[in-house]
Amino acid sequence: MTVTDELLANNAAYAASFSGPLPLPPAKHVAVVACMDARLDVYRALGLKEGEAHVIRNAGGVITEDQIRSLAISQRLLGTTEIILIHHTDCGMLTFTDDQFKADILADTGIKPAWAAEAFDDLEADVRQSIKRISSSRFIPATTSLRGFVFDVATGRLHEVAAG
Amino acid sequence: MTVTDELLANNAAYAASFSGPLPLPPAKHVAVVACMDARLDVYRALGLKEGEAHVIRNAGGVITEDQIRSLAISQRLLGTTEIILIHHTDCGMLTFTDDQFKADILADTGIKPAWAAEAFDDLEADVRQSIKRISSSRFIPATTSLRGFVFDVATGRLHEVAAG
Repeated sequence: MTVTDELLANNAAYAASFSGPLPLPPAKHVAVVACMDARLDVYRALGLKEGEAHVIRNAGGVITEDQIRSLAISQRLLGTTEIILIHHTDCGMLTFTDDQFKADILADTGIKPAWAAEAFDDLEADVRQSIKRISSSRFIPATTSLRGFVFDVATGRLHEVAAG
Repeated sequence: MTVTDELLANNAAYAASFSGPLPLPPAKHVAVVACMDARLDVYRALGLKEGEAHVIRNAGGVITEDQIRSLAISQRLLGTTEIILIHHTDCGMLTFTDDQFKADILADTGIKPAWAAEAFDDLEADVRQSIKRISSSRFIPATTSLRGFVFDVATGRLHEVAAG
């Protein structure tokens, strides 16, 4: 039995008490962009309920083309206007460099990825960088609030770093 | 007061009963890729607790370069081996076409995005397509289980569509 099987059994229990469907557009008109880190349960950390906010996550919570795509769809088609960006302490992205990561992949596979790994060595600087990538995009036109935070994995608390 | 302010107040309550820090690598060695849809609370729908699984999300739960990047980091640096892909019923990605979305952005901004919007018109076909994009990548080397599902927003239940 895989972990996937175990989680599917959990889903059956979840569905037994599920009540739906809710409307498609996020009720609170918010999109959250956050790191994929396992310790950051975005719904619980922000007190979100089902149906309230889009949640976009990747390695680092960095802003690449795909997050611009997702935010453009979120705002232009589904009516969100506020954006919350979340990085966190003890992030894996602080533990390597793009050059080394890509050299290791090249050594293992014979192929060097054509993409940036987006590692960073300064957590708060990367929050600021990510906020600037969002605020400089013409494809995300409806933003009324854009704020960037660091989630502390020791305390569960958000610390504000930047606004756009 | 913005919704962001309201969610920050929720975070203070969350932190008051938070216990951490947990280890960085996901305890269950699982990475979940899912749509950003507000109605899909991945932790609750799969019975995940903090620290157990990476959660990667974007518009559609589609696989682009950034999800390959995130999965490569998840497997190569943080030891995950199982991948769960989740699309869902009533998805916003079923409601438009790439051509129209990009033409609208061009009309509004004068700039046509250089990226694909990744809209789709067949939910299960896109789950299968996404599974194939993952399984064909050389940069995601450690997969022991790769399964794709549709989450039903009316019932909360996962329906399996494809495996890689």
